[in-house]
Amino acid sequence: MSQAELIAEVLRDHGPQSVVTDPRDIEPWLSDWRGRWHGAASAILQPANTAEAASIVAKAAAHRVALVAQGGNTSMVGGATPPADGSALILSLRRMNRIDAIDPVALRCTAEAGVILESLHAAVAEHGLRFPLTLGAKGSATIGGLVSTNAGGTQVLRFGTMRALVDGIAAVLPDGSIHDGLSKLKKDNRGPSIDQLLIGAEGTLGIITQVRLKLVPAVAARAVAWLGLSSPQAAIDVLRALEAGTDRIEGFELLPRESLDAAIAQINGVRPPLATPHPWHVLVEATVDRGTDETPESLLGRLLAPMVDRGLVGDAAISANEAQAQAFWRIRDSLSEAERKAFGAATQHDISVPVEAMPAFLEQATRTLEQAFPGVQASGFGHLGDGNIHFHVRAGSRGGPGWLEREGEAVSRLVHDLVVEAGGSISAEHGIGQMKRGELARLHPGRVRTLRALKAGLDPEGIMNPGKLI
Amino acid sequence: MSQAELIAEVLRDHGPQSVVTDPRDIEPWLSDWRGRWHGAASAILQPANTAEAASIVAKAAAHRVALVAQGGNTSMVGGATPPADGSALILSLRRMNRIDAIDPVALRCTAEAGVILESLHAAVAEHGLRFPLTLGAKGSATIGGLVSTNAGGTQVLRFGTMRALVDGIAAVLPDGSIHDGLSKLKKDNRGPSIDQLLIGAEGTLGIITQVRLKLVPAVAARAVAWLGLSSPQAAIDVLRALEAGTDRIEGFELLPRESLDAAIAQINGVRPPLATPHPWHVLVEATVDRGTDETPESLLGRLLAPMVDRGLVGDAAISANEAQAQAFWRIRDSLSEAERKAFGAATQHDISVPVEAMPAFLEQATRTLEQAFPGVQASGFGHLGDGNIHFHVRAGSRGGPGWLEREGEAVSRLVHDLVVEAGGSISAEHGIGQMKRGELARLHPGRVRTLRALKAGLDPEGIMNPGKLI
Repeated sequence: MSQAELIAEVLRDHGPQSVVTDPRDIEPWLSDWRGRWHGAASAILQPANTAEAASIVAKAAAHRVALVAQGGNTSMVGGATPPADGSALILSLRRMNRIDAIDPVALRCTAEAGVILESLHAAVAEHGLRFPLTLGAKGSATIGGLVSTNAGGTQVLRFGTMRALVDGIAAVLPDGSIHDGLSKLKKDNRGPSIDQLLIGAEGTLGIITQVRLKLVPAVAARAVAWLGLSSPQAAIDVLRALEAGTDRIEGFELLPRESLDAAIAQINGVRPPLATPHPWHVLVEATVDRGTDETPESLLGRLLAPMVDRGLVGDAAISANEAQAQAFWRIRDSLSEAERKAFGAATQHDISVPVEAMPAFLEQATRTLEQAFPGVQASGFGHLGDGNIHFHVRAGSRGGPGWLEREGEAVSRLVHDLVVEAGGSISAEHGIGQMKRGELARLHPGRVRTLRALKAGLDPEGIMNPGKLI
Repeated sequence: MSQAELIAEVLRDHGPQSVVTDPRDIEPWLSDWRGRWHGAASAILQPANTAEAASIVAKAAAHRVALVAQGGNTSMVGGATPPADGSALILSLRRMNRIDAIDPVALRCTAEAGVILESLHAAVAEHGLRFPLTLGAKGSATIGGLVSTNAGGTQVLRFGTMRALVDGIAAVLPDGSIHDGLSKLKKDNRGPSIDQLLIGAEGTLGIITQVRLKLVPAVAARAVAWLGLSSPQAAIDVLRALEAGTDRIEGFELLPRESLDAAIAQINGVRPPLATPHPWHVLVEATVDRGTDETPESLLGRLLAPMVDRGLVGDAAISANEAQAQAFWRIRDSLSEAERKAFGAATQHDISVPVEAMPAFLEQATRTLEQAFPGVQASGFGHLGDGNIHFHVRAGSRGGPGWLEREGEAVSRLVHDLVVEAGGSISAEHGIGQMKRGELARLHPGRVRTLRALKAGLDPEGIMNPGKLI
């Protein structure tokens, strides 16, 4: 059996640390963290560096054994779960967790694929620097996975998604060769960028092993404002007014009243941020650099005051200290858990539309869903500033045991139809993985044809993360 | 003959404006502008829009007729010249020259591929905006070609190459399908980016037809300083000191004394910018926005004065008005012409190395070349701030008729060997085209294998710009 031969060769060449075969050690990595997808794999292969990863991939190519690259296993779409038939092995990057070349002048560092996001934050902070991408899974998610899925998160508004923060990639291609894009060149026109091709490819075209990342100076201070508003359109108006006055807005998160109420009711220690109820809420984060005269609290206060005066903002509370800022973020970060506890089963959609189109989309999509599936409740929350909303459709009075299994797919198809109609994307930041593969093929057959052609060219034997994306 | 059938079908479906067959009208487009490459083609096909371009490519795919996409035909590497055997037709984008959706709030516009760079500059200037990429060929070069070659130019320091300025691409893929990446989404993770794959692909993977571009506010004022320096290392030190004091440095061009002397001697109206001679010179451009208190002259003066005081800068002249600023730029822009007139034949190399490595590279490469080919003179000038130098090796006393033909290739091979040794790129901004295809294959066989695999997947019949890049 070629898997056994491959495992034996890896053991022989790279030692016992490079192979895990005890089923008890493999088991936690066979399912995604939400327990929706389950796979099988007879071994986890764990290279110590890029050269070992290349050696392992070359061996796998020779034996035609497929590999599923895994970092922190925090995919929202089953992107890192091996196939159920045991036809692939897991290639884990977790031993590759070195951070090198932190350069406060060039504002760059190099991280191996297995570096956990939170560890990166801590390492660069020691040099007075910041890696300005963060998300809920930061304690587990790894750099390789974050690049492979072009991760977003809560600070995209100012610094962009992972694509904007990558300055170079080393990767192992499906034939076992090493692509070295880690050079410090500012200009290089030797054909199209292989680096760019690997970003967002979900491990289907190669395995990212090292990344040169852009850094920014650490912030001196941040403040968070909580706003009560009448509508998503008012939120857009507030965003545009803030952006006209400063370039220091880093987060802009929308949530509806019922989500806030759910958090207050379900999550320990969450208290109402405003004295009166409002149909919609926004969390705004602003930061200032060292050497700036104005505090972030004063900046937010100065910009928001006229909006409160003219009624655009119904009410506003600005954090007076870091503890209050964290308390506001805690509400936002607990929304998924709070919604699950309060409302039970829901279909979830990580979708985007052009920012200005979001208010109309939210209204139309909510109405259409509630008409098509009487009894459900539809609602969106999330990164309004990026045109990216997590659109949930809850069982509501239509629910009961098995509702998700019974109607979930039909609900998602309708949501995705509306997204495509609005010129949007059925995956804003989570990727396609296994979860949205069928929908991508249904809605974008031309795109899938193109991606398949790329895959056929680079990975003709299909050994890279089979069954994902296309 | 399938070319004739294709031409007849295009005529039938898209009218007489879409086909040029008069040899006198075709002739100017068969050679590159420097007259180094000559091709043959029986017709130029000229779609009026993306749909027509898709229809033409689909027909060409059906007839297996290759197409060479052409914009302004300003390639420095023979990238837009058809094959000499007449096996391809030219697909000219020149009828597609509309500029749409200039949006001063979103800071975006959409340009068709045939829009000439200078026309774009003028169109957005009417809205108080600027497209911050410019280069010598701006009066002819088109947006489609500039994106297909990831063009650089003289303002890369602050705004990056074309890749950093593209926000979306529409293109026709080799099977005639349309890739529409023009959406206004800020987040979209439906697999790897097809847009990014087309940037720098030199028309070998598809034909770019429309581009959504990033704009910046028009500058209120600019000033240019001319510096006399002792060495390239001093120039790097000046650059770092300027960058520590401001983010408004847009251009930073290095030139050696003999290049300046050549310009003064050969170009009408060029006068010495400084009173005394210096071995090296730098042109610095700084800009300020509307509403800024400080003038760019004062900004440059304030930052440069201490450098003059401590002897880092030997001498400095700051433009007092726009006419003087233009006079300084005229020296820089006339260097290629001045060098040709003063020194005759030279091999030219558009190369990059990491910025900090450039001083050592210049010294070592000059010494090595002059030792290996006694009598030649080697010298570099250009975009030092980007680590991108145009490295010329002049015939010198080794010259005489036929020198370029006799030794040009050997000289270039040695230069490229040194570049690769220094971790650099043999094409910083001009691309590969026909000129550097052999060198790319010699020095980077793995990279060429990967690019060929991509090409084989997307363009299995090889109908897109054959004979270029790989």
